[in-house]
Amino acid sequence: MNYLGRHLILELTCCPEALLVDCPRIQSLMEAAARIMGATIVESRFHHFSPLGVSGVVIIMESHLTVHTWPEYGYAAVDIFTCGDIDLERGTDFLVREFGAQAVSIKSLDRGALEEKRDSDLPPQVAPESPV
Amino acid sequence: MNYLGRHLILELTCCPEALLVDCPRIQSLMEAAARIMGATIVESRFHHFSPLGVSGVVIIMESHLTVHTWPEYGYAAVDIFTCGDIDLERGTDFLVREFGAQAVSIKSLDRGALEEKRDSDLPPQVAPESPV
Repeated sequence: MNYLGRHLILELTCCPEALLVDCPRIQSLMEAAARIMGATIVESRFHHFSPLGVSGVVIIMESHLTVHTWPEYGYAAVDIFTCGDIDLERGTDFLVREFGAQAVSIKSLDRGALEEKRDSDLPPQVAPESPV
Repeated sequence: MNYLGRHLILELTCCPEALLVDCPRIQSLMEAAARIMGATIVESRFHHFSPLGVSGVVIIMESHLTVHTWPEYGYAAVDIFTCGDIDLERGTDFLVREFGAQAVSIKSLDRGALEEKRDSDLPPQVAPESPV
């Protein structure tokens, strides 16, 4: 089975609270992760919610990165959705390190299954002639 | 176990190609879904990529909705990430119907686990006095 996209779901926990409230720093890290992976940034939009927490998205030609932080719990939810030739591992390693996460869970999902042709979709094969 | 957020991952397939290239219509549908769920829209950003496909995000106070379309495959990848009191089912039903998806897969992920206190975290209990 082939897929159109790949989606990494990162649960970054035990991150320093000071980082998780720092909207400009988080925007900078998410954009850097996109560049490190080889993605092309279309635009990025980040918001600092009062009193706590940052939400942001980096739209890339190859889909998107998003982040939401809960500083009071030391938690950041990061999603990286990509298609094409993207070095996901480099971006993921960078974010885990720069967010200072002491515990990490990463799920990988394939998105957009391209069904392969089943045998029943193919024209009937002509049986080779049996040797006499 | 309690969680900070809930993340629905929708695979909408066999959608009409004419819709999946229509950036203003898709933006309108995604914003309507956010409102129907009871979410508060912070901003929404949508892009039509040449020659095909739409990418967009609706940032809501309660996290985000994203969409990426592959019209040539009749496929739309939709993510709905929310926290708080949001009627996910109404938003999901609306999008499945309005995208005209003939086949749908929906995954639900809990995000941001809040660990409950284990017995070992509690102070030791004093054993009740045994009856004489």
